[in-house]
Amino acid sequence: MAPSAEDIRKTVERYIEAVATGTADDVVALYAEGATVEDPVGTEPRTSVESLREFYGVIEPLKQTGELLTLKIAGNSAAFHFSLVTDLGEQKLEIAPIDVMTFDDDGKITSMRAFWSQEDMITS
Amino acid sequence: MAPSAEDIRKTVERYIEAVATGTADDVVALYAEGATVEDPVGTEPRTSVESLREFYGVIEPLKQTGELLTLKIAGNSAAFHFSLVTDLGEQKLEIAPIDVMTFDDDGKITSMRAFWSQEDMITS
Repeated sequence: MAPSAEDIRKTVERYIEAVATGTADDVVALYAEGATVEDPVGTEPRTSVESLREFYGVIEPLKQTGELLTLKIAGNSAAFHFSLVTDLGEQKLEIAPIDVMTFDDDGKITSMRAFWSQEDMITS
Repeated sequence: MAPSAEDIRKTVERYIEAVATGTADDVVALYAEGATVEDPVGTEPRTSVESLREFYGVIEPLKQTGELLTLKIAGNSAAFHFSLVTDLGEQKLEIAPIDVMTFDDDGKITSMRAFWSQEDMITS
């Protein structure tokens, strides 16, 4: 059975929370086996659990806050705009991509593609 | 040569303007030959010029205003959140999907996928 909109919303909210304040393992646990991550879109997709853990491990030690700005669900897919603010001490770095995800029947993420470019990184 | 971010932004802005206030032909002219449209995501993609013209022809007579809310560009792809408000006389119908598009070297749209569901249609 396809995941409900509520299942998808929960996974997206957990994802943003895990990316902002959780461990790499917390994030990777939201992915289904065999999931792929293309971040940003246009780069070589990551296709192994190890490469996903490596990817999210980079941001694990950072002090971050995440916020879901917009979520649109269509079938077993979702597109969402969210903000991730990293506290760098004297500066803050904000990035607010649009991510597209697909989900399996259990609401786990089967693919993620992140739309953003350097111009979307704002320091303040 | 890949389209520049500026080329992509222009096409997206023209697309929203054409969808809101132009003719079906205005919209279809922004698509490359062989382009596909999946709206909403999860439905059968439209793959012929005739089916695109039919699709946009439905909204051609409506009195609409469009607004680009967020645009994220990555390589030759873009994801954007926009609002389309239809004036129904006594009521207004607003829908604000996230669309994902790919572009060819000339900045023409090669594919469009729209993320939204019934819950995203708001009357006021």
